[in-house]
Amino acid sequence: MSFFERLKAAASAEWRAYTEHPFTNGLADGSLTEAAFRHYLVQDYLFLIEFARAYALAVYKSPRLADMREAAAGLSAILDVEMNLHVKLCAGWGLSPGDLEQAPPAVEMLAYTRYVLDAGMRGDLLALKVALAPCVIGYAEIATRLAARPGAQAATNPYRVWIAEYAGAPYATPAREAELIAIFKEATRLEADFWEMGWRAGEETTRQRVMSTQPS
Amino acid sequence: MSFFERLKAAASAEWRAYTEHPFTNGLADGSLTEAAFRHYLVQDYLFLIEFARAYALAVYKSPRLADMREAAAGLSAILDVEMNLHVKLCAGWGLSPGDLEQAPPAVEMLAYTRYVLDAGMRGDLLALKVALAPCVIGYAEIATRLAARPGAQAATNPYRVWIAEYAGAPYATPAREAELIAIFKEATRLEADFWEMGWRAGEETTRQRVMSTQPS
Amino acid sequence: MSFFERLKAAASAEWRAYTEHPFTNGLADGSLTEAAFRHYLVQDYLFLIEFARAYALAVYKSPRLADMREAAAGLSAILDVEMNLHVKLCAGWGLSPGDLEQAPPAVEMLAYTRYVLDAGMRGDLLALKVALAPCVIGYAEIATRLAARPGAQAATNPYRVWIAEYAGAPYATPAREAELIAIFKEATRLEADFWEMGWRAGEETTRQRVMSTQPS
Amino acid sequence: MSFFERLKAAASAEWRAYTEHPFTNGLADGSLTEAAFRHYLVQDYLFLIEFARAYALAVYKSPRLADMREAAAGLSAILDVEMNLHVKLCAGWGLSPGDLEQAPPAVEMLAYTRYVLDAGMRGDLLALKVALAPCVIGYAEIATRLAARPGAQAATNPYRVWIAEYAGAPYATPAREAELIAIFKEATRLEADFWEMGWRAGEETTRQRVMSTQPS
Repeated sequence: MSFFERLKAAASAEWRAYTEHPFTNGLADGSLTEAAFRHYLVQDYLFLIEFARAYALAVYKSPRLADMREAAAGLSAILDVEMNLHVKLCAGWGLSPGDLEQAPPAVEMLAYTRYVLDAGMRGDLLALKVALAPCVIGYAEIATRLAARPGAQAATNPYRVWIAEYAGAPYATPAREAELIAIFKEATRLEADFWEMGWRAGEETTRQRVMSTQPS
Repeated sequence: MSFFERLKAAASAEWRAYTEHPFTNGLADGSLTEAAFRHYLVQDYLFLIEFARAYALAVYKSPRLADMREAAAGLSAILDVEMNLHVKLCAGWGLSPGDLEQAPPAVEMLAYTRYVLDAGMRGDLLALKVALAPCVIGYAEIATRLAARPGAQAATNPYRVWIAEYAGAPYATPAREAELIAIFKEATRLEADFWEMGWRAGEETTRQRVMSTQPS
Repeated sequence: MSFFERLKAAASAEWRAYTEHPFTNGLADGSLTEAAFRHYLVQDYLFLIEFARAYALAVYKSPRLADMREAAAGLSAILDVEMNLHVKLCAGWGLSPGDLEQAPPAVEMLAYTRYVLDAGMRGDLLALKVALAPCVIGYAEIATRLAARPGAQAATNPYRVWIAEYAGAPYATPAREAELIAIFKEATRLEADFWEMGWRAGEETTRQRVMSTQPS
Repeated sequence: MSFFERLKAAASAEWRAYTEHPFTNGLADGSLTEAAFRHYLVQDYLFLIEFARAYALAVYKSPRLADMREAAAGLSAILDVEMNLHVKLCAGWGLSPGDLEQAPPAVEMLAYTRYVLDAGMRGDLLALKVALAPCVIGYAEIATRLAARPGAQAATNPYRVWIAEYAGAPYATPAREAELIAIFKEATRLEADFWEMGWRAGEETTRQRVMSTQPS
């Protein structure tokens, strides 16, 4: 069992709450509300900026040149590729760069990104990688699972682009457990909160719409 | 107008939402639910630990020995005095040290403390002090205002100890604006969210109690 | 007068001791000993790795996405371009990648790189940029001055490749003085020590050779 | 064999070069020049300030409250006790607080203190403790050995106060080797350079005096 397999086993409840959140199922069958997805997209833009900072921190933390180059490649992938893809994806949902840049940060986004940056600054490169892992290995795992669902990749599913984008390749690394499991659990829990935040935004919009269309 | 007066003026909406939050009024007239206060107390314990780390960071960041000594005095005040007072206050509300240490961190506590630590690590000593200011100057301002309310310090108000503890002395420092105002606003907003978190816990408990006593 | 012009004026003695060090003149007229240059090349390789870490720190420290991209471009320039050029230059002087990787760090290299990293971690992005400035703006200024000397670019000057490599474009940024001048002075002084270190290595080799050829 | 015993064994050459440096023997038999000791005292004052910052960093890095309190006690010991003792010791050698505060930092002091701070910020709490260990455990070991020498504690030895001050208690902690041994070796080597720096200052003064008294 690889190091991350063991981490996932040690944090299995948190891992399931994150990777099997209703938000993700709503992406596969297209039932997620637009409001929920849009709110998620905006916060995910702010999230990417902080994740780029975390990769820069990984370069700074690296004890070897090979680690520096690997982390620098990750940083460049976020700043030069992922962010552009994200801005394009957002444009398709009616969100302009200005909408993204001026969005007030959600408490869930702040908690998650700053927790990762602090765990990484406080600990060493491995602690930082573990804090990054729920996103790095989780998104690929989620998207791969969703992509296999009937209809997930159909032209009628508005979320098929997101699924295709993340149904990519996973990741791996060595170990020093207990402390790392604690970081991993916390970061996984915060990933789940992030879905929850998007989900709540959708439910509120639905409730408001339902209420505004009810006869008084 | 002092530097912090100008910061408060520049962040007046956030400052009011924080210092005049319903939670604070509930402390003055004793109407705050016990569940809300207890949840707040537990998270405030976790908060104090991170604030001690922020003061340690201020020692590290200090360009002059005098700044180091000042920050080290703040660190010592938290670890040697405030935390003990807090543990005692918690004991009076039926919360044991074990309850405090094993409490899962709330997302609002994580967001606030890690934001402060990150703003401080990213910027210089002044940026860190500004991020700490809503707590350092706000708690004194709130408690002083509440203490003046009729009945706030009466033996019948279960929250009089908290009010007396914080109706203490404020704080002050120099300037480099715009960026600092942004940090101050964010930290103030997160202080308000912290109250909101406690408030919500109280409302949920009340709702559950009301529901459990309703005839089915 | 630009910000860096003012910094240079405020640190004029340190700036001259660095940019007009005998080591640099030895590069222009080819009189520098091979031992001095080789020792410098090896330590400069270790220096580049730490400078890459400093640029990664600048990405982490950046308050805006545009600053992040600028610093990330600098990081990538070091890791993907400068280090390769440096390894090639070293090969031309008989230094293998193994020689570079296994070299024990000189105290002057440690003092300079760690001072820059600490000044940058302690302060904000501007403090970090000021600590980086003696290298970033100084090397271009030195190489441009040397390139204009008669014979400096002649095929007979073994150091013409180094001169050509750095006779490139300078750099610029805004201000908060006194503290920044102090950082700038210190970093400039450490740049001079770095030359001095190389120079000493050359003198020692010469002395040893002279002594070993003297009749006993 | 304890963790630090193994570290010392793994870095035995560096450890001997540090703990048995001629400078230390000169302290035991009183033969060290005043100029060497005075230069050392001044740089050691600047060193203590950075070591206080390193202990503050240890508080920030601590994963547990108990670790935070231990590191905070170390910080307070430096700022509230050691620095005062040091200022008094310096006064006995004719060095005023002003002499200490205005002294230009020596390259050996910068290299050592910034290496420790960087190794600690880059790695985790254990890495930081290992980087601090040559000073924390070495000084006690050196002073204990010197104190046992005949005459070391005699009233005629001007360095007996220094010896008595450090002939105190050692220190201990757990493990993750290779990387830690590398940090320990480097920090030990830099401790030796620190002695060397003081030693050189003494030799230069002696040389100058000898030359100025020679008949021309």
